Amino acid sequence: MNSTPLQDLSRRLRQFAAERDWEQFHTPKNLATALVAEAGELAAEFQWLTAAQSSAPNAEQLARIRAEAADVLIYLVRLADKLGFDLLDAATAKIAENERRYPAEKVRGSAKKYDQY
Amino acid sequence: MNSTPLQDLSRRLRQFAAERDWEQFHTPKNLATALVAEAGELAAEFQWLTAAQSSAPNAEQLARIRAEAADVLIYLVRLADKLGFDLLDAATAKIAENERRYPAEKVRGSAKKYDQY
Amino acid sequence: MNSTPLQDLSRRLRQFAAERDWEQFHTPKNLATALVAEAGELAAEFQWLTAAQSSAPNAEQLARIRAEAADVLIYLVRLADKLGFDLLDAATAKIAENERRYPAEKVRGSAKKYDQY
Amino acid sequence: MNSTPLQDLSRRLRQFAAERDWEQFHTPKNLATALVAEAGELAAEFQWLTAAQSSAPNAEQLARIRAEAADVLIYLVRLADKLGFDLLDAATAKIAENERRYPAEKVRGSAKKYDQY
Repeated sequence: MNSTPLQDLSRRLRQFAAERDWEQFHTPKNLATALVAEAGELAAEFQWLTAAQSSAPNAEQLARIRAEAADVLIYLVRLADKLGFDLLDAATAKIAENERRYPAEKVRGSAKKYDQY
Repeated sequence: MNSTPLQDLSRRLRQFAAERDWEQFHTPKNLATALVAEAGELAAEFQWLTAAQSSAPNAEQLARIRAEAADVLIYLVRLADKLGFDLLDAATAKIAENERRYPAEKVRGSAKKYDQY
Repeated sequence: MNSTPLQDLSRRLRQFAAERDWEQFHTPKNLATALVAEAGELAAEFQWLTAAQSSAPNAEQLARIRAEAADVLIYLVRLADKLGFDLLDAATAKIAENERRYPAEKVRGSAKKYDQY
Repeated sequence: MNSTPLQDLSRRLRQFAAERDWEQFHTPKNLATALVAEAGELAAEFQWLTAAQSSAPNAEQLARIRAEAADVLIYLVRLADKLGFDLLDAATAKIAENERRYPAEKVRGSAKKYDQY
C-alpha cells in the first residue's frame, strides 16, 4: 500500500527530530503544549481583525497565517506519531459522530448548535 | 490528478458546513479561535500528567486525545480551505525553513534551539 | 502593611492546594498549561459570536464567562505564587513599557500597532 | 470605599485604551482571543522544560514569564471591565464552588480529581 502525504510528512518529521536528538523533548505532553502555543500565535493573527478582514488577508498576513498553520499541523502530526494513532482516521470518526449529533435537517437555518453560545 | 486524503477531508467538511448553513459562522477569525480552544482541550488532557504518563495514556485517555486532535485537524483544514492555501505545502515549506535554521550538525546534542528556553 | 485582595486570594489558593496535597501537581509548567486550557475555554464562549453579540452576553453566557475568567485568574495567581513574583508589579511594569512603545500622540487614530496585523 | 489595586489597574487600562482610541478593538471577543494568545506565549516559555526546570527558571526566563503573565492579567482585567463584572468576586465564587466539589478529606492523598486524567 502506498503511503499518504500525511504519512510521508510524519516520517519526515520523525527523521528531522531524530537527526537533531530532539526526540527527548517531544513527549506528548510537551508537543501538546507547543501545539496550543502555536495555535495561539495563529489566533493572534486574527485577534484585532473584523470577520470581513479575516476573510481577505493581504499577502503578508496570509504568509504569516500559512506559517502558523503549518506549525500547528507539524506538532499535531508529531503528537499522533508519538501516540501511534492515525490523524485522518480520528477525523473521519469525529465527522461521523458530528453527523449523528447534528443532523442537517434539524440544525439547518436555526443553527441549533451555535444557539447555545 | 487524484485528490489526497486531506483534500477529501476538506471537501467533506465544506459539504458538512454547507448542508447545515454553518458557513456563515466559519470566518477565518472564528475558525482560528475555535482551533485554539480545541488545542487547549487537547493540552488539558496532559496538564497534570508527568512526561512519562503522557507517553503511555490508557485506552480512555487515548480516545479523548484522538477526539481532541481530530477537532484541531478539522478546524485547521477548514481554515486552510476558507483562505485557499494547501496545508501540506505550508508544512513542507516550514520544514525546509527549519532545516536551514537548525542544521543537524550544529544543534545536535547541545539542542541549541531549546537551550534558549 | 496590609495585604491586598490579590495577595489574600493567593494565600487562600495555596492553602486550598496544600489541604488537598495538590501542590505536587502545581509545577509552573503544569499551571501554565492549565491556564492556557482555561483561556481556551474562555475564548470558546465567544467563538461563534459577532463582535456586537460578544458585548451583550445574556445572563447564562455571562455566568459561564465569569466562571472561565475566574479559572484563568486562579491559575495565574497560583503560577505567580509558585515562582515568587507579584502579578500587579508585573502588570504595572508592562503598562509602563507599553506607554513608551505606543505614545498616544503617535498611535491615536491611525492605531499604528493594530495596522501591523 | 477605597479602590483595590486591581480596580486601579482596570481604570488605568481603560484610560490607556481611550487615549489611543483603541476601545474600538477591545470587544470582549477580541480581548478573549488576545488573552488566549498571550496564555499560549506564557505556556511556550515552559514547553520544553522538565517540571523541575520549570520551578527554577533563570533570571532571563523569569523576566519573560513575568512579562507574559502580565499580558494575560491585562487582557483579563480589560475583559472583566468591558463586561462589567468583578474578577475577584468571580474567583471567590469559583473557590467556594471548588471547595464543595473537592472536599479535602475526600480528595486528599488519592488526588481524586487528577486521577480522572
